[in-house]
Amino acid sequence: MSDDERLPQPATADIDLVTVLHALGDPVRMTLLLSYADDGEHSCDPRGLGLEHLHKSTVSHHMRVLREAGVTTTRVAGRNRFVSLRRADLDARFPGLLDALLASGDTRGNSRAVAAG
Amino acid sequence: MSDDERLPQPATADIDLVTVLHALGDPVRMTLLLSYADDGEHSCDPRGLGLEHLHKSTVSHHMRVLREAGVTTTRVAGRNRFVSLRRADLDARFPGLLDALLASGDTRGNSRAVAAG
Repeated sequence: MSDDERLPQPATADIDLVTVLHALGDPVRMTLLLSYADDGEHSCDPRGLGLEHLHKSTVSHHMRVLREAGVTTTRVAGRNRFVSLRRADLDARFPGLLDALLASGDTRGNSRAVAAG
Repeated sequence: MSDDERLPQPATADIDLVTVLHALGDPVRMTLLLSYADDGEHSCDPRGLGLEHLHKSTVSHHMRVLREAGVTTTRVAGRNRFVSLRRADLDARFPGLLDALLASGDTRGNSRAVAAG
């Protein structure tokens, strides 16, 4: 990982609760959060994220909002970008919040997002 | 309470996670949430809510967003309206979420809201 770069993101201490809630208060971004909850790295291809119905630029916008809020981190490796959840940072900053969101969002967030797309 | 009315609000089962997060993704509305966390009934007077710097119509708008999202309930008694948190409904719908939000928001939400006002 030492040769890779990361896109700009807030330091853990600067992650703001209201900004995180604003970022997640959108059905597409909630769908992304649920995809990232496996703690793996994800490409930015909408097809792998259940968002085939959205334009790639729209998905990129939503990914940027999540990254700038501190929800995700984006690793740049050559021409590829890989997105993953900042679980440890979020858990440290807001104990219990992410678990509660994922438990609640898991049952409804996906269907809502698809319907709203 | 039987003679009082309530302003329109979603049924507990219809409270949507993304809508709640969108409602709380605003510094003024987070300040209101923290005020309502005492589980008391609050008048709509901005002066009693630490929001003296905002116009009454602005505060009313934010209160409406919270109510329509299912975060609060508003009791109408004659010419007065009293707002309170739907803690039991939110806890039933999204276990652990409200506690995590209040624990996290308590240390930062207020100062952010005042600064952003």
